[in-house]
Amino acid sequence: MSINGTKNDENKTPPHIIDGLDDFNKKIGDKVVNCLTGMRPSGRLHLGHYKGALENWIAMQNNPNIKNNFLIADYQVLGDHLGDTKRLRDSVIDMVIDWLAVGLDPKKSNFIVQSYVPEFAELFNLLTMFAPYSVATNNPTLKDEIKKVEGRKDGSNNSISLGFINYPVSQVADIMLPRGEIVPVGEDQVPHIELARKIIKKVNTMYETSFPLPKALISETPRLVGTDGNDKMSKSLGNTIYLTASLDEIKKGVNSMYTDPNKTSISSPGNIENHVVFKYLDIFYQDKEHLEDLKKRYIAGGENSVGDGEIKKLLIEVLEKLIAPIREKREYYKQNMDLVIESIEKGSQNMREEGQKLLEELKEKMGITKYGREF
Amino acid sequence: MSINGTKNDENKTPPHIIDGLDDFNKKIGDKVVNCLTGMRPSGRLHLGHYKGALENWIAMQNNPNIKNNFLIADYQVLGDHLGDTKRLRDSVIDMVIDWLAVGLDPKKSNFIVQSYVPEFAELFNLLTMFAPYSVATNNPTLKDEIKKVEGRKDGSNNSISLGFINYPVSQVADIMLPRGEIVPVGEDQVPHIELARKIIKKVNTMYETSFPLPKALISETPRLVGTDGNDKMSKSLGNTIYLTASLDEIKKGVNSMYTDPNKTSISSPGNIENHVVFKYLDIFYQDKEHLEDLKKRYIAGGENSVGDGEIKKLLIEVLEKLIAPIREKREYYKQNMDLVIESIEKGSQNMREEGQKLLEELKEKMGITKYGREF
Repeated sequence: MSINGTKNDENKTPPHIIDGLDDFNKKIGDKVVNCLTGMRPSGRLHLGHYKGALENWIAMQNNPNIKNNFLIADYQVLGDHLGDTKRLRDSVIDMVIDWLAVGLDPKKSNFIVQSYVPEFAELFNLLTMFAPYSVATNNPTLKDEIKKVEGRKDGSNNSISLGFINYPVSQVADIMLPRGEIVPVGEDQVPHIELARKIIKKVNTMYETSFPLPKALISETPRLVGTDGNDKMSKSLGNTIYLTASLDEIKKGVNSMYTDPNKTSISSPGNIENHVVFKYLDIFYQDKEHLEDLKKRYIAGGENSVGDGEIKKLLIEVLEKLIAPIREKREYYKQNMDLVIESIEKGSQNMREEGQKLLEELKEKMGITKYGREF
Repeated sequence: MSINGTKNDENKTPPHIIDGLDDFNKKIGDKVVNCLTGMRPSGRLHLGHYKGALENWIAMQNNPNIKNNFLIADYQVLGDHLGDTKRLRDSVIDMVIDWLAVGLDPKKSNFIVQSYVPEFAELFNLLTMFAPYSVATNNPTLKDEIKKVEGRKDGSNNSISLGFINYPVSQVADIMLPRGEIVPVGEDQVPHIELARKIIKKVNTMYETSFPLPKALISETPRLVGTDGNDKMSKSLGNTIYLTASLDEIKKGVNSMYTDPNKTSISSPGNIENHVVFKYLDIFYQDKEHLEDLKKRYIAGGENSVGDGEIKKLLIEVLEKLIAPIREKREYYKQNMDLVIESIEKGSQNMREEGQKLLEELKEKMGITKYGREF
């Protein structure tokens, strides 16, 4: 992904933005850095999550220069789905099982539950003193999200909570507590990283600390459309294929995909512009030569053309090949819940210990500790 | 103090407002209740603090039906004096020494340092999810305080921090963590108690908890004017008499008091309307009969009149009698810092243990704990 089209022009890329893992290796790859990333617990994950995040996370996990912290941001769900306890509990566990199933490894990376680590709240509380109120009132991302929540039709939360307003600063605490140096984000999230840099810099300047200023790691992640062709793949739109779908579910998903309604027979010429099956093959099918050949024949029509049936069958095979082992591992972890529980409890405990060290350091510098004692 | 002049009409006093300690004994005095009150660490205390709060606190401490929690609200100072570490550290210790010197007893009451108890931050963080954003935007007290901070001339903080905006909800956490049932406040602070009730009620309703809804305890506290007659006694106005003033400082304070400039000799008639010395005697001098006689003679003038010199001398004696033992105890604690340190460390530790129990209870009800386990 390029920032303002400057991918190949290093001079124009702001120094706090790293353009993909290759750029990371070039710029930072000679030391071990802490990485913080995470997800809202959204339940079972789908192919969009895989392509948009998990595949990258696995690459980061395989990079010996990155110490990964994967956050399960359950507080963020409370902020706008308060009261829906069952949904939250199921969402957390379903998501963690999927993390394990795709190969994220709690021995190599910390799986951290936000609410298990009160140190996040304590650091957040301190950082609110450094953050100007205008963070809430002027933040464009927040303004958009406020509009979304207020417009939500299901009545789950018609009014904005104070917690929702605090969310950008809460994210700064999420990054700072593990001394995060890189944060993989989408381009639209760069302002959050810039806010984190601004606040942490203020702390460093005011109290002579040297907490790292995070850099945004922007990786090339193709945006997967929904099975219906909608720009966004989302559970609520019913246009997802789960990362642990059964073969039947894969078939159902692929067979419902938008193709070219004007290609009425195999031999009629076709249009692939909004053709969802081809869009998926572009992303998931490795044999690019074969794919190009299929496209040409699909477009041309005639005797050697291919129909939707054939390419759908191909996509089903491709997806089944990707998903089958993940599905199997999901079943394994569902039968071994102790491993799932251990993964989040161990990672969270690690974070607590690191977090306490950071807070001790910060509070000593700020002087809000050991009143009446010299230190 | 009466609320809307309804002191003697119980039907008209809202049930969440208790009108002084007598009313407390009548309404609640048959069980032990938790009380939360506190101060911003403002350094050495003055007579205004004594009459406005401490005298009441001592009465509460002597009431076997009240379990007192006295909070040292150091986070609140960070909110608008960030960076002034030395001032904060000195302020905390000077204030605690004065608490001890007037007879507050850490064996009977918890002295709690806000920043020593991360459970406050954790609870606060949770409560922000329950609090509507409008708490910040519509709160009249907050609006006033924002104006004050923005108008401050010393440049100590020209912009409002997010922490400042969060302050009313942070106070709700301060009350809820010790399961505070009564909170001594001035009449202008009643909206804060009402906010606490609203938020805690929402928690109770949503998650079937039964955390107590706090009641405001409004006690009759005379407002002490400054030595210059200014409505407010305040360090920054230089019109205070410290609770541990030396005899010389008492003399200097009393001798600088505004009297009647038109009473040019002892025998000329006088006016006591804005007479600061008489205002102080009204509050501190027990012999009301003698005081009335002095006032009459001061006003009348003539042969039997009294002059400013005589009544100033009387006030100096009265204040010295009050202050001398406090001053002595202050010296004692300054020589025994370990007792001061122990008082805040023990009280804060007690609060941590109680707070952890409350958080465990709340998080279990909210379901944000032990994911994957049954409980």
